[in-house]
Amino acid sequence: MTKIKIGIIGAGRIGKIHADNLLLHPSVEIVAISDLFAGPELEAWASARGIDTLTKDSSEIIQHPNIDAVFICSSTDTHVPLIKQAAKAGKHIFCEKPISMEIGQTEEALEAVQQSGIKFQIGFNRRFDHNFKRVKEHVAGGTIGEPQIVKITSRDPSPPSRDYIKASGGLFMDMAIHDFDMARFLSGSEVVEVYTHGGVLIDSVFAEFDDVDTAIITLKFASGALGVIDNSRKAVYGYDQRVEVFGSKGSVSIANDHPNTAVVSTEKGISSDKPLHFFLERYTKAYVEETQKFIDSLVTGTPVPVDGHDGLQAERIALAAKLSYRLNRAVKLSELEELRR
Amino acid sequence: MTKIKIGIIGAGRIGKIHADNLLLHPSVEIVAISDLFAGPELEAWASARGIDTLTKDSSEIIQHPNIDAVFICSSTDTHVPLIKQAAKAGKHIFCEKPISMEIGQTEEALEAVQQSGIKFQIGFNRRFDHNFKRVKEHVAGGTIGEPQIVKITSRDPSPPSRDYIKASGGLFMDMAIHDFDMARFLSGSEVVEVYTHGGVLIDSVFAEFDDVDTAIITLKFASGALGVIDNSRKAVYGYDQRVEVFGSKGSVSIANDHPNTAVVSTEKGISSDKPLHFFLERYTKAYVEETQKFIDSLVTGTPVPVDGHDGLQAERIALAAKLSYRLNRAVKLSELEELRR
Amino acid sequence: MTKIKIGIIGAGRIGKIHADNLLLHPSVEIVAISDLFAGPELEAWASARGIDTLTKDSSEIIQHPNIDAVFICSSTDTHVPLIKQAAKAGKHIFCEKPISMEIGQTEEALEAVQQSGIKFQIGFNRRFDHNFKRVKEHVAGGTIGEPQIVKITSRDPSPPSRDYIKASGGLFMDMAIHDFDMARFLSGSEVVEVYTHGGVLIDSVFAEFDDVDTAIITLKFASGALGVIDNSRKAVYGYDQRVEVFGSKGSVSIANDHPNTAVVSTEKGISSDKPLHFFLERYTKAYVEETQKFIDSLVTGTPVPVDGHDGLQAERIALAAKLSYRLNRAVKLSELEELRR
Amino acid sequence: MTKIKIGIIGAGRIGKIHADNLLLHPSVEIVAISDLFAGPELEAWASARGIDTLTKDSSEIIQHPNIDAVFICSSTDTHVPLIKQAAKAGKHIFCEKPISMEIGQTEEALEAVQQSGIKFQIGFNRRFDHNFKRVKEHVAGGTIGEPQIVKITSRDPSPPSRDYIKASGGLFMDMAIHDFDMARFLSGSEVVEVYTHGGVLIDSVFAEFDDVDTAIITLKFASGALGVIDNSRKAVYGYDQRVEVFGSKGSVSIANDHPNTAVVSTEKGISSDKPLHFFLERYTKAYVEETQKFIDSLVTGTPVPVDGHDGLQAERIALAAKLSYRLNRAVKLSELEELRR
Repeated sequence: MTKIKIGIIGAGRIGKIHADNLLLHPSVEIVAISDLFAGPELEAWASARGIDTLTKDSSEIIQHPNIDAVFICSSTDTHVPLIKQAAKAGKHIFCEKPISMEIGQTEEALEAVQQSGIKFQIGFNRRFDHNFKRVKEHVAGGTIGEPQIVKITSRDPSPPSRDYIKASGGLFMDMAIHDFDMARFLSGSEVVEVYTHGGVLIDSVFAEFDDVDTAIITLKFASGALGVIDNSRKAVYGYDQRVEVFGSKGSVSIANDHPNTAVVSTEKGISSDKPLHFFLERYTKAYVEETQKFIDSLVTGTPVPVDGHDGLQAERIALAAKLSYRLNRAVKLSELEELRR
Repeated sequence: MTKIKIGIIGAGRIGKIHADNLLLHPSVEIVAISDLFAGPELEAWASARGIDTLTKDSSEIIQHPNIDAVFICSSTDTHVPLIKQAAKAGKHIFCEKPISMEIGQTEEALEAVQQSGIKFQIGFNRRFDHNFKRVKEHVAGGTIGEPQIVKITSRDPSPPSRDYIKASGGLFMDMAIHDFDMARFLSGSEVVEVYTHGGVLIDSVFAEFDDVDTAIITLKFASGALGVIDNSRKAVYGYDQRVEVFGSKGSVSIANDHPNTAVVSTEKGISSDKPLHFFLERYTKAYVEETQKFIDSLVTGTPVPVDGHDGLQAERIALAAKLSYRLNRAVKLSELEELRR
Repeated sequence: MTKIKIGIIGAGRIGKIHADNLLLHPSVEIVAISDLFAGPELEAWASARGIDTLTKDSSEIIQHPNIDAVFICSSTDTHVPLIKQAAKAGKHIFCEKPISMEIGQTEEALEAVQQSGIKFQIGFNRRFDHNFKRVKEHVAGGTIGEPQIVKITSRDPSPPSRDYIKASGGLFMDMAIHDFDMARFLSGSEVVEVYTHGGVLIDSVFAEFDDVDTAIITLKFASGALGVIDNSRKAVYGYDQRVEVFGSKGSVSIANDHPNTAVVSTEKGISSDKPLHFFLERYTKAYVEETQKFIDSLVTGTPVPVDGHDGLQAERIALAAKLSYRLNRAVKLSELEELRR
Repeated sequence: MTKIKIGIIGAGRIGKIHADNLLLHPSVEIVAISDLFAGPELEAWASARGIDTLTKDSSEIIQHPNIDAVFICSSTDTHVPLIKQAAKAGKHIFCEKPISMEIGQTEEALEAVQQSGIKFQIGFNRRFDHNFKRVKEHVAGGTIGEPQIVKITSRDPSPPSRDYIKASGGLFMDMAIHDFDMARFLSGSEVVEVYTHGGVLIDSVFAEFDDVDTAIITLKFASGALGVIDNSRKAVYGYDQRVEVFGSKGSVSIANDHPNTAVVSTEKGISSDKPLHFFLERYTKAYVEETQKFIDSLVTGTPVPVDGHDGLQAERIALAAKLSYRLNRAVKLSELEELRR
């Protein structure tokens, strides 16, 4: 059995998670890993996993003759040039979201992907979550009839650091982008119009960077269905990730995952533990599955489960949401080209 | 102990419910009831309850020398003239929602109320529901800190008849008006801006009357908090009435009430019965309590729990929602006066 | 429409509840009420309800020429003589549980009932509870196949007074008797053997009266099914009344009822309010329905829903449970006659 | 870092699971594996995991000079001789439950363990389950005060094969033994008396081997607390593993784990997916943790989390339960020695 040979670009938290998850797949060999800040610690980490090559130079990965596919886990501003290079070099690509902060650049990168014919998967991990998948199955299977209302609650347990916020691209591109993908995924329909109510209710640092920390985003789908996403950067009780799809024959909804099912009853009331704290706990298995599915599609030659178009569309919705917030009016996705000029 | 003497105008479903609930209060005597279609059946009904006077003429109720307060349960178009007459006659008023379909007329009616100094309560029954009240207690008591997001789900089990739709004033004034009141009640803040995404997804009869059957309405509160209401005229699984208030220290949410707690586990899965079917089942006790509180405030001379201002504000939000849908843009409540010209 | 004329014997808490519930039935007139401690307060209470006759002498009720049926709500030691007198006088009887503390006496009372041909209902109110009824429907309807395990949890929020305990007949006859009836009702099979593990874990006052405050009682049914009841006199979180019936095709279980569905999420965890506090809150509607059904069966001539045999069987199981505890061995119900000698 | 070198005896399902879980621990090396039916398939399996030695002869494992510890995963009848041999050879032992079917033999094996001074862990995996652990934490931490009632529900999704039943030692020794351990673990008190109600309600094959398929087992603890376990070999809705500990200050209970949180609402009712199907799904993580903790205790020299005494006590309770069923009377654990003669 020949193995798929992988190179990983960017050995931050998510790069390391992908590496460990890849190693669970019997057909994977990680050949090399690159990071701008590679040092002794990373060396030990790589060595313990039998990864031979460690470099600071991502082009060494991309040009590596034995590598079949690269995982792009470096900072967002590096994604587009790396995608272009890797596409040119004929390497398959798994890229973290978003592809870029600029639709035009994202389109250029996807153009390069298309021309080279490589496989390209975008890291929308939530599509592989056991709860969201079950919702999708019910919607796709007709359990709830024609979808009419899609509701997504997506709240982080606490705001990121000032530095993170500054470089994040803002709530819409950084955080809500997952929800935009989920809206398309669950409804099975494209978003055509967006309206955003946003506010800075948690920390004024968001205002400094022209960002918001709280938002309610309504969506109109091509199918006629309506959607709404509510986002907060700070849910003190933990990561809050719920959806509901309501349709002509019923609804399907999911609640948060909890670390256990224990319920305590005392004189004071009934209580239980908070939900799983954040994305690493909640989406542990989803991260495993997204990399496994990528490898599977390389092995079997079938299409990747989340492709460049999915990445682009989520970015376009994010841009529309941002513009809607600034203009205080509904923004059609068909207006974007004009508004971008 | 002297009794509060009540006259009821309009002996439809809700008029009869109020009558029976009033009779549960030890300080109440129902003196008379009027209905345009009074006949033998209603006569038997009134007689079984010891109500002496039955008439087709509402003015007989309003001018009745022994009556202290009137319940206005007739069709919406009669509310304003009846309120003016009753106010002039010095009768306290309990009036079903909405006061009218026209803000200007509602204002006139409330002006008449104010000048006469009578008590005036509007029938926003949900404020008395055990679930909504508990949410309000938690919000007011500071459990969840500063409210940031108010979410309301409000869906009927099945659309009303064509005739009802025609005369209803539309989804915003007829159905969502309860949710607008709840938004103000739970947040403790006034709504200042509204944006509506609406659609006809259930039955084209709504389009005939320039109405919608599905809507997502986002709200901005004076406090800076955001809100969202989703409405549907047809939830096949029954009446869906849930809210969530999310704030700086946590969230409080309520689920639907169910007829029992039975859970069945079989080879096919886990199942339970649908929620209580509609408002008569869900709000049975709330209807009792709203009339009891009205009587209590007459007996003790304390303010009514839901007053004319509450009625007016909910109508103003409904109008803003309707305009937002027509104009496809956010509408500020401060614009209403200008837009109405 | 002729009315059923009722006399109530014993105007304690439960007697008053039955009276108010009876008054909700359109075919009922309460003619008289008796209580050993009748005084001005009770007089006011009776007068407010239009009950003409108030007496200290229960025989006045039983011999009253206009009375069709009596509610026996006096202390347990009076039940048997009152039943005999009422049966002789041809009055239908609704009797609180238990009929008596002595099987022999209960049998005598039921013999008198049988000979007179009157209707006799025993006050097992839980059979009319919306949750228990739904379980019964599922079991009887075959949802769970052949019942194999019946589990009942029945715990009071706090122990009764010393005086109550002294006269109560003990946990098995006073408290678990409801559960024994429920075991028969839900399984649709007779109990044939009982084993009791009991203890005094809450308050030593129970030991003084040779009573227990905590028990686990296992049952064997004629059908071969097994059952278990766990009882406690003190669940600090409130009244705990749950059952589960497990069978060849699945299980059905019920949870407690709660005053609202509000769920609070904070940094500390997830919490909600305690269940309804005690039987008056939990079984409010069940008390209404049991009296309505009794009246209905008088009006229509159909059998009462819970009869003397049900009362007797529950007492026999209670006795077996008590003997099992004393003898520390399983006791067959067929042994009871021998053991009683 | 020196590695703990492991030999695995018995490469059936559980042996393989332990092997894979052991490989997740950074300090583990699996040196050899033995199985009576070792063949090409197992060879491939071992080779893929880098396990050098594969043998049919367990003594090769036990005598292997480089092995520090053995995992005894072979059939129950082989446990005692293997324990004795391994103890003599100075190998630490992880042994699947039960140690044996005969208390006397178990005692002999534990005697050998004690004399050699090796570490010995018994495979009561449920102690490591996230739900049961949380209950234990609450009980041990005093959340519910003094435990008074321990309730355990433990039901398998479907009966094992005829061959398995024949060799299983019966429901009490094979299945309920886990629950007996849980009763001790959660209550923090020893079981002193047992009473069993059992029956053959599912399949007559159990009767052939003098076994039962359904049981309710009540327990008395040294602390005075009471306990009850209900077992079934066939819960059609899946693996049912719940506990509740009730005490002077409240209760803590756990529900089953489910594959997702999706809830579907339709015209027919509310439904969700069945619980995780069986022990491999439900206890996946618990199996990992029990082996990790065993290795940790070898590495750090701390006591194992579940020791030989725990294994013995659970067997003694199982024997008492079996005798109680046969004798149809409560059996004290202090009677066991006498009854065994």
